[in-house]
Amino acid sequence: MADTDTATDSTRHPPVDFRTEPARYKHWKLTIEGRVATLAMDVQEDGGLRPGYELKLNSYDLGVDIELHDAIQRLRFEHPEVGAVILRSGKERVFCAGANIRMLGQSSHAWKVNFCKFTNETRNGMEDASTESRQVYLTAINGPCAGGGYELALATEHIVMADDGNTSVALPELPLLAVLPGTGGLTRLVDKRHVRRDRADVFCTLEEGIKGQRAVEWGLVDEVVPRSRLEETVSRRATELAGRSDRPSAARGIVLSPVERTIEGDRIAYRHVSARIERGRGLAEITVRTPAEAAPATPEEIATRGADFWPLAVARALDDLILHLRTNEETIGLWVLRTEGRGDVVEAYDRLLVDHANDWLVREVRLYLKRVLKRLDVTARSIFALIEPRSCFVGTLLELALAADRSYMLDGAREGEAAAPPAVRLTAMNFGPYPMPNGLTRLASRFLAQPGRVDDLKGRIGEDLEAHAAAEAGLVTVTPDDIDWEDEIRVAMEERAAFSPDALTGMEASLRFAGPETLETKIFGRLSAWQNWIFQRPNAVGSHGALRVYGTGERGRFDPRRV
Amino acid sequence: MADTDTATDSTRHPPVDFRTEPARYKHWKLTIEGRVATLAMDVQEDGGLRPGYELKLNSYDLGVDIELHDAIQRLRFEHPEVGAVILRSGKERVFCAGANIRMLGQSSHAWKVNFCKFTNETRNGMEDASTESRQVYLTAINGPCAGGGYELALATEHIVMADDGNTSVALPELPLLAVLPGTGGLTRLVDKRHVRRDRADVFCTLEEGIKGQRAVEWGLVDEVVPRSRLEETVSRRATELAGRSDRPSAARGIVLSPVERTIEGDRIAYRHVSARIERGRGLAEITVRTPAEAAPATPEEIATRGADFWPLAVARALDDLILHLRTNEETIGLWVLRTEGRGDVVEAYDRLLVDHANDWLVREVRLYLKRVLKRLDVTARSIFALIEPRSCFVGTLLELALAADRSYMLDGAREGEAAAPPAVRLTAMNFGPYPMPNGLTRLASRFLAQPGRVDDLKGRIGEDLEAHAAAEAGLVTVTPDDIDWEDEIRVAMEERAAFSPDALTGMEASLRFAGPETLETKIFGRLSAWQNWIFQRPNAVGSHGALRVYGTGERGRFDPRRV
Repeated sequence: MADTDTATDSTRHPPVDFRTEPARYKHWKLTIEGRVATLAMDVQEDGGLRPGYELKLNSYDLGVDIELHDAIQRLRFEHPEVGAVILRSGKERVFCAGANIRMLGQSSHAWKVNFCKFTNETRNGMEDASTESRQVYLTAINGPCAGGGYELALATEHIVMADDGNTSVALPELPLLAVLPGTGGLTRLVDKRHVRRDRADVFCTLEEGIKGQRAVEWGLVDEVVPRSRLEETVSRRATELAGRSDRPSAARGIVLSPVERTIEGDRIAYRHVSARIERGRGLAEITVRTPAEAAPATPEEIATRGADFWPLAVARALDDLILHLRTNEETIGLWVLRTEGRGDVVEAYDRLLVDHANDWLVREVRLYLKRVLKRLDVTARSIFALIEPRSCFVGTLLELALAADRSYMLDGAREGEAAAPPAVRLTAMNFGPYPMPNGLTRLASRFLAQPGRVDDLKGRIGEDLEAHAAAEAGLVTVTPDDIDWEDEIRVAMEERAAFSPDALTGMEASLRFAGPETLETKIFGRLSAWQNWIFQRPNAVGSHGALRVYGTGERGRFDPRRV
Repeated sequence: MADTDTATDSTRHPPVDFRTEPARYKHWKLTIEGRVATLAMDVQEDGGLRPGYELKLNSYDLGVDIELHDAIQRLRFEHPEVGAVILRSGKERVFCAGANIRMLGQSSHAWKVNFCKFTNETRNGMEDASTESRQVYLTAINGPCAGGGYELALATEHIVMADDGNTSVALPELPLLAVLPGTGGLTRLVDKRHVRRDRADVFCTLEEGIKGQRAVEWGLVDEVVPRSRLEETVSRRATELAGRSDRPSAARGIVLSPVERTIEGDRIAYRHVSARIERGRGLAEITVRTPAEAAPATPEEIATRGADFWPLAVARALDDLILHLRTNEETIGLWVLRTEGRGDVVEAYDRLLVDHANDWLVREVRLYLKRVLKRLDVTARSIFALIEPRSCFVGTLLELALAADRSYMLDGAREGEAAAPPAVRLTAMNFGPYPMPNGLTRLASRFLAQPGRVDDLKGRIGEDLEAHAAAEAGLVTVTPDDIDWEDEIRVAMEERAAFSPDALTGMEASLRFAGPETLETKIFGRLSAWQNWIFQRPNAVGSHGALRVYGTGERGRFDPRRV
């Protein structure tokens, strides 16, 4: 069983690097014609991220998805003129066979779960692009579209399928592999496309899937057309959708230059973000810093700074760091968030994001920060924030403390230090632009008991709140003074390191998502939990489990007890 | 690991019987004074349902909860005058220590999960009594109230706690046992009581819990009072709440006489419900029949029939059968629902339930049917409905088909049989009185894609819909004719039996709960899934897992990898 793995993935394999660029893509081709882009999936069979499997039939592994994630990001920032993106296969006779089964079969439990999380985030990111960034995704299906392949299509807003004997959509995970579709498929079937639940039941048990008109009737795809008219139909739809987009056709994109990062021993450094791993204590300290340079004044100046624009640079660094730590540092269970710098600087940048909210690039930066903060929300690590002298938990950076499971704020100054007592400060960015996966702001999620407090806090925007006031306002968890600080923090960290990592994951996933539910909370809160469970069960991963024996000619043998 | 259990619980132990009555209670004392009832928990240490553990400190096992469930049911039906129920401990120095840990430690995975499901349903039933039946539960806490003990309190509407050194509330599952509170605790903390998530995080990691005024401030309890004033305060609150209830103080309750049941080999029979288990095929066929006697005409006549009133008798039989099959027949993974009798009879009973909806007893019957149908919704078994000649899937009984994962309806008559082709029929009972756990009717959940269809169907109440019309209306899944029927059903059943039971559980839980979320769907859809996962993990149940070593003096040893 995957359970009994003793080596971590990160010790058995070289670390995964999430940074890439189109010139290095092995599996995707990005082309752009006017307002319409096309992302063609053409997976290189021998291009797997790790040895031991072949990526046949456009099946994918994490490496394929890292490129997709990169392409989606670049389309948003580098191509303001693009209003629609066609997702298609670059292969003649198959759309996509989903996640590679041999890869899953040989992966540890943690790797499988982490892989699913990233693919889920990437699919959610596509939907975010369609609805928030008005760069609408649509899919052209030629040939079999199964499992993760169909889940990819489900994450787009319009699905056109060829009506031929070879083409169908399917979610064959249950009958074939004894697991669930791991990338939001079940949720999107019934909660996005509103497929009738009894039809969804039938569909999810049909290995061969559903073809033609019946797929339209059941709501599985939006239209079917003869193979000969597939390209033309999708092109026309894409042009229509792009025509309705509010993205500026004449604007120039910015270049997402490579994220610069150094890793030296247990230190990871980006320009404005750094991390220090303390292996013995099972934690990583992450610090975000304000820049030396003043905020620019106009959208033009922002565009000129491009990827160096501080909020964007911070988003990219944090995003990369989160993915790096999640994937390559499985045993580091506690992330401690710190900030350093001048609150005024953060406030000035926040004002810029508010004042030019409708500028396409400012919108992209804001949406990216939103997605990075959401990545924190769904990360299976404990998160503490430490608010100390010289910190700048202000506005956008205050969201880091609000995303944390707990925050500790020093009450008063440090004896013998010149720095003033720490303060937190609200800006307009705390009141809407960064919704959590549940659709509410972190403040609204925090004050479900007294929603009126959020309005009260609006009146305190710009005010410096020291420990006592911040605690009173409900913004921080614990406020030890200088005498207690060291001990209190140390004990809390030691205690966290001593708890069961699994129970912490389950508890945090339950406490972080209070309030309303969305596709995203259902995917991360519920579907992932069921999949985690099934990925552990002998019926899937035991020596006769279906996932284990797939492709050997043997069929899975099951313990018939229902749980 | 619990995983590798080979014997089923049902083969190792005598079957569990869910039927009981106050005279046989070992663990609870029910007293009634005027409009206020008191349920005192006084668990008998050596009264465990199974050998191998002692129920110390008012800790509980399934047997304790079976009595609680019975008491709640009886209070609703037998005591219309009761408007408030005080939950308290019958022991001097402890409220309740939660589920018994040794019992959990020695139980199979399936038993633990099933136990949690029943306790969850019982807690939800208390909330249903408080809000729908206006019999409001409140808690008086004297002494430690931990884990499942506090979860019991959380399921009541008002919690009063003694302010003394000995009394606290706690959810120590995570620090002590490396599992989650299994009975809705996390969800009710943040989604019912709206405890701030960072405080909830702190609270759930504190073995010793929280006492006194701080518990009020954090929203964990509603009030604290000196120990000497506990009884009086709770009494006063109960009297106030009872005073606001619309339950009739002068009405006479009905007696819930013992549910009569015979089990002979693989046949289980109640008066209006029967089941036949086909072990070789892994399925149970369940048939609900209409009564010989005509429906009564008035609320008085209903009260006279009492527990023999057909809808109530069906509810009680189905409830018992569901619990029996879930607990004692773990390997029977498919339930096939059938009905037999006259649709007119069901329609007449439904009309009665509608016409006298405000009568206290009719309301109780309707609410009970609602809860039984919800039990089906959250049952981890595949459910098919077969709609054949002589069936009566009408109104309330049609809900059985709508609750099924799929329904098969014979198109036309059977060759050589006199019986007319089957038809289904809607009544007003399909349009509101039986919401699912998501708060929507089964019809509304079914037509999320086209909500207008529900209104259209209202216009067809009372119409007999044969297969073609029923399929057109979206009410049934598949409509084979007589030639195809046998094969189609047989293949579907064989196929279902061949799938992984775990993957089916995860799939069904995902597809059944589309649409909005409620406390209930969060508890059953999300919290249960996380708990299922954690209950499987070596960190909880492995040879050094915290749940396994609890009480041995050893501490749990954990694999530090975060998943």
